[in-house]
Amino acid sequence: MKRVYLDNAATTPLRKEVSDVMMAVLTNSYGNPSSSHAFGRSAKAVLESCRKQVASFFNISPAEIIFTSGGTEANNLILQSAVKNLGVKHLITSRVEHHAVLHTVGALAISEGIKVSYVDLINGAVNLEHLEALLQTKERTLVSLMHVNNETGTILNIDRVGAMCKEYGAWFHSDTVQSIGHFNLDLQKLPIDFITASAHKFHGPKGIGFVFVRKNSGVQPILFGGEQERGLRPGTEALHDIAGMTEALKLAIDAMNKEYEYIQGLKTYFVESLKRAIPEVVFNANSDTVGKTTATILNVRFPKLKSKGEMLQFQLDLKGIAVSRGSACQSGSAQVSHVLKEILTADELQQPSLRFSFSIFNTKDDVDYTIDVLKALSS
Amino acid sequence: MKRVYLDNAATTPLRKEVSDVMMAVLTNSYGNPSSSHAFGRSAKAVLESCRKQVASFFNISPAEIIFTSGGTEANNLILQSAVKNLGVKHLITSRVEHHAVLHTVGALAISEGIKVSYVDLINGAVNLEHLEALLQTKERTLVSLMHVNNETGTILNIDRVGAMCKEYGAWFHSDTVQSIGHFNLDLQKLPIDFITASAHKFHGPKGIGFVFVRKNSGVQPILFGGEQERGLRPGTEALHDIAGMTEALKLAIDAMNKEYEYIQGLKTYFVESLKRAIPEVVFNANSDTVGKTTATILNVRFPKLKSKGEMLQFQLDLKGIAVSRGSACQSGSAQVSHVLKEILTADELQQPSLRFSFSIFNTKDDVDYTIDVLKALSS
Repeated sequence: MKRVYLDNAATTPLRKEVSDVMMAVLTNSYGNPSSSHAFGRSAKAVLESCRKQVASFFNISPAEIIFTSGGTEANNLILQSAVKNLGVKHLITSRVEHHAVLHTVGALAISEGIKVSYVDLINGAVNLEHLEALLQTKERTLVSLMHVNNETGTILNIDRVGAMCKEYGAWFHSDTVQSIGHFNLDLQKLPIDFITASAHKFHGPKGIGFVFVRKNSGVQPILFGGEQERGLRPGTEALHDIAGMTEALKLAIDAMNKEYEYIQGLKTYFVESLKRAIPEVVFNANSDTVGKTTATILNVRFPKLKSKGEMLQFQLDLKGIAVSRGSACQSGSAQVSHVLKEILTADELQQPSLRFSFSIFNTKDDVDYTIDVLKALSS
Repeated sequence: MKRVYLDNAATTPLRKEVSDVMMAVLTNSYGNPSSSHAFGRSAKAVLESCRKQVASFFNISPAEIIFTSGGTEANNLILQSAVKNLGVKHLITSRVEHHAVLHTVGALAISEGIKVSYVDLINGAVNLEHLEALLQTKERTLVSLMHVNNETGTILNIDRVGAMCKEYGAWFHSDTVQSIGHFNLDLQKLPIDFITASAHKFHGPKGIGFVFVRKNSGVQPILFGGEQERGLRPGTEALHDIAGMTEALKLAIDAMNKEYEYIQGLKTYFVESLKRAIPEVVFNANSDTVGKTTATILNVRFPKLKSKGEMLQFQLDLKGIAVSRGSACQSGSAQVSHVLKEILTADELQQPSLRFSFSIFNTKDDVDYTIDVLKALSS
């Protein structure tokens, strides 16, 4: 059976070059980077070379890159430390953030008694006027808004939000898990304090990510132990994963424009083919709009199909096509996506919505096959 | 130049079978285990098969194994949650624990205002009478004592401590990072609530570990996000690392007795050769004692050598021999080991001490070469 993977926002296949690098590190650089002998120094050299490369992609200093076990830990580090160490009493975020942000904010609201404001949304996009109104506060504030939404692909005007946060003296954190490797982020120019990344979203390994922590921000660790990662993140560094992530990021950034264009071409082709095949489809949060949403993500609402309604994802799966109903972290459950809940009406939520997410490894042939299957299911 | 790696307590070389398994998972099972389609289900099957295998090695239920990014996070999860969620007001530990425990306990003492008691030591070993005295408290107590000390190799009587904790109604956590794969731990019989492990200490990959959390203990997550790991540890699972760890553990446990005997043979050979070569050496914390200390670790104090005193590790490094002065997490610094400080007198601390740690990949030839170099340096 043909197999088509259109769930690249959940995780991406590894690039061959990445697993080669990982294997080389696993085999040749097994020392502990904290050891002072030759085996350790050789591992440390790999580690610091990775840090330097990653920093160079964002035009920042290597000291500002802290490796973590992934995006979730990275987001937790910033949000938990902001409240515990930076004196933040007010968190501004949105209800369409990833659970790694939303649930951390929720936990901090309870345990630390801080104030949380949720910015209004306009069809899934942040209402910047409301954000500005929320920023008019005397309390020490951190704004946490994701760059690219993982379900709808909606892109935040990160420059504008950064400028606003700067103007009002608020810290600015952005979960950039879905944008890293696809968008250019010059962190020397962009007024932002913290961004977070997860390697497996850009064809790197799972279980590794990083956080950009602006110099002298005062962030403190949330896990305690050794002095690794400049004292901000203890535990022996997962060198093979860090090297794999660095290679994946290098490849993504080297070919970014060309690959983005290719993926955007696929998405546009998908949108047009789908509209021809099933004219009643609606693109949630205008996720078909070029420029306003990322090329990698498309969120589609289907007309209510007779017997096959909620079973749409399952039917596609039977045909070898992998898509998602929401973020993977909750897709095991039958719950409605917390993101779509903020965007759709109760009636609209009754219709089946699916997220299709693309990568460089997809082809027009994948699209054609998927559209054919969707058409057959809807007729 | 000959290269000899005798720093296996810091980290171990990967077994070839382990990297093979990791490569297969990276290539073939790239789905997100939380996704409900075929790619996700295939990844989930790998994940749960690993969990089941790991649990079987300890005679417990798969639901009691939570994968983490390593030993440090595992120790943090238990200690932080014990105080925040289990109502623990009193932590009993020792001053020779790993920093992942000591610094976490220290941070909790400050942020949560809990009481900390440090059990007395007798030449690096826990004074069980003092422990029993400390347990006579009305406060909700957790005892955190490592099974095998990472610097001296001292083995805790974990059965006895478990029984005492049970008798006095205290939780019992043990950092088993240095003992997993070398000692048999039947957690159905052993009265213990939590143990922690790190794969790279038993020829598995870095950046992955696990924690055994006794069923119904009430532990809550310290990081927030998705519902992975039964809600106890969010973030997409590092499937390749988990599979690599499982394979490493399987191989270690399958051959445990044979391999332990081999390593003990090497250690004994090292001890005897060293005593012949430099009769003035002393074994800190009686780390040469078979049965009382692990086969993998030997901590040696050398007579003060004329010009070469503190430079001993450096001199060995120049000859291709990797050993440690303390735990890797602090070996970058010139600080005296916090463990030896608790064991040696001020005068004894002036003498150079080194930790030699062995694995199945070491040979008698490694030992002969190292003893020859040591002898040349001391004469």
